[in-house]
Amino acid sequence: MTTVGILGGGQLARMLALAGAPLGLRFLVMDNVADACAGQFAPMVVGDYRDEAALAEFASRIDVATFDFENVPAESARWLVERVDVFPNPRALATAQDRLAEKTLFRGLGIPVPPFAPIDTLDELRAAIADIGTPCILKTRRLGYDGKGQFRIRGAGDIDAAWQALGAQASKVGLILEGFVHFERELSVVAVRGRGGEFRAWPLTENWHVDGVLSASLAPARVDEATAALAVGHAKRLAEALDYVGVFALELFSRDGELLANELAPRVHNSGHWTIEGSETSQFQNHLRAVLGLPLGDTRMVGTACMLNWIGEMPDARAVLDEAGGHWHDYGKEPREGRKVGHATLRSDDAAALAASLQRVGTALGRQDQVLPVIHALQD
Amino acid sequence: MTTVGILGGGQLARMLALAGAPLGLRFLVMDNVADACAGQFAPMVVGDYRDEAALAEFASRIDVATFDFENVPAESARWLVERVDVFPNPRALATAQDRLAEKTLFRGLGIPVPPFAPIDTLDELRAAIADIGTPCILKTRRLGYDGKGQFRIRGAGDIDAAWQALGAQASKVGLILEGFVHFERELSVVAVRGRGGEFRAWPLTENWHVDGVLSASLAPARVDEATAALAVGHAKRLAEALDYVGVFALELFSRDGELLANELAPRVHNSGHWTIEGSETSQFQNHLRAVLGLPLGDTRMVGTACMLNWIGEMPDARAVLDEAGGHWHDYGKEPREGRKVGHATLRSDDAAALAASLQRVGTALGRQDQVLPVIHALQD
Repeated sequence: MTTVGILGGGQLARMLALAGAPLGLRFLVMDNVADACAGQFAPMVVGDYRDEAALAEFASRIDVATFDFENVPAESARWLVERVDVFPNPRALATAQDRLAEKTLFRGLGIPVPPFAPIDTLDELRAAIADIGTPCILKTRRLGYDGKGQFRIRGAGDIDAAWQALGAQASKVGLILEGFVHFERELSVVAVRGRGGEFRAWPLTENWHVDGVLSASLAPARVDEATAALAVGHAKRLAEALDYVGVFALELFSRDGELLANELAPRVHNSGHWTIEGSETSQFQNHLRAVLGLPLGDTRMVGTACMLNWIGEMPDARAVLDEAGGHWHDYGKEPREGRKVGHATLRSDDAAALAASLQRVGTALGRQDQVLPVIHALQD
Repeated sequence: MTTVGILGGGQLARMLALAGAPLGLRFLVMDNVADACAGQFAPMVVGDYRDEAALAEFASRIDVATFDFENVPAESARWLVERVDVFPNPRALATAQDRLAEKTLFRGLGIPVPPFAPIDTLDELRAAIADIGTPCILKTRRLGYDGKGQFRIRGAGDIDAAWQALGAQASKVGLILEGFVHFERELSVVAVRGRGGEFRAWPLTENWHVDGVLSASLAPARVDEATAALAVGHAKRLAEALDYVGVFALELFSRDGELLANELAPRVHNSGHWTIEGSETSQFQNHLRAVLGLPLGDTRMVGTACMLNWIGEMPDARAVLDEAGGHWHDYGKEPREGRKVGHATLRSDDAAALAASLQRVGTALGRQDQVLPVIHALQD
């Protein structure tokens, strides 16, 4: 009997446990809150990720550790790695936690990125803006998540406000200035790499964000084969450079046929939730297969799928369950503003059927704004 | 938050809980053993099904009750039904628990059955054999399960041995004599009926048993459309007659183009396990949708699928995980002779690919005997 420990007990841990049960796995989840939703289907250790006693208990009861939460302190991951196998490795985690290290690695691997510069002082900020131009975005290097810790600079007049908002972070978590990309599409490669280096990617996914939070994903993305192959190649080089094991997402911007890397998510990813019903093997099961050194599953998809995120509160399930290809995912969380509480996946054999299904669901739920960009994409 | 109570904590309860989690459901499992495998993913009440205190605790913590085990005492089900919604209803359970009531109902609905007769005495057994002929099978009316409580009578010389083996049961659980059917194929209809009477069936499944225990299932079964429609019609009439809510299986024999009903299983069924990966909606999720009064999910399948049962102990997973359409299900049970400990589903786009996949898996696991009947069926 193998017990997989998961640091972080949110919906990703929950879906990992549900996907791993058929492999005969048991799970132990560690989270700093006792009502973390993964705890409804797996035993928990409740404790802060920096609490060595809690970490020691966690480590003593598991065979291998992984993450549902990328901001687990890298030192906690390193502490764990001396006691138990940890995948992905702490270096991958540390790289993804630091926007500067991440973008520097991208650039070093020949993966194009928007212009960026490390910022320690207001003078550096002024100089970097002169170099990169506006609009641009001042971000904290670490612990940024879903649009928090960011300040958009539209012109030179915003510099002081930006520094007032984030300048104090420069000496704490560091700052980075990034050129703003007027992208046509946001894409993600969700991919998996096994312990032996085997690499597989799911079809490219196209994403729509609202207020910095993922709203909808469509797979396969509307890109030509060459673009898809380029994106997957970037992801493969990145995984190899980090000796990455498990599932990860590489977020990209597409502009004028060019791809610019935005971010690495060192874990199963919201833009891969459609794989549960849309692919022969879900990202959750393949992450576990990778972590355990088992053969990776087939990542092909049948038809086309759209994932709609439910933020804040769950809508009525019936509109989705009424659809032939409608699948519901309620994470068992209390409603709270801005919180990811669930998602739906609509799967169809072709684009026209998917667009019709999205239209019905959007109308029934009064969520036309959420489905319209995807419908337009499908009708392109 | 809705909590579904499941009487019986085996693999069916486990797979119900895993399928119900995305609907935001919580589960409570009642079983008489503390290490029932569903308990790895759901909280449990441990107690005998006849223990009113345990049943009362169970009932007080749930919103609706269902079964993973058809031999829950019907009186326990009736006790529950006065306190909480119970699906399927106790009458359906009681009918399925009594071979005589079951076959009488089949016949009354115009569903052909093999010849049968209730047996209370040795004289009645002799008379019934003279009428039905040999070979035939003497069975207990109740609590028969997977070939237990049965005696096959090849000729008049076996009568005394049969009576010696089972005669004492006549006054306890009753006996029934059934004509032996020289069937060509064993089929099952796995179907679901909703609270509002909505009815859906998955494609017919063909089954192979070894020593009375399911060994392999193939879907869709190799039957013509008229036969499939006839079988589904039988299942629909049966469900309506019992006001059945939830998933059930109707087992049938096919012989000379004729269908004979064998048995009703008033629960999700081993021959429907392939629906997890092979159908848009699994039998487990549709059972829960029915029980909760939610819209039923699409029961269509894509391609063709074969389920292989693992009895006694789990083989090495790798041979199955290496297959593109290979899916593994380890129930988390201790190995034990004759115990269902897991299954695999192989899914392919067409029969030739499935046969090739079965060949590879059978060879790798040294289980040619298990896969060969299915391969032959696919090559027919």
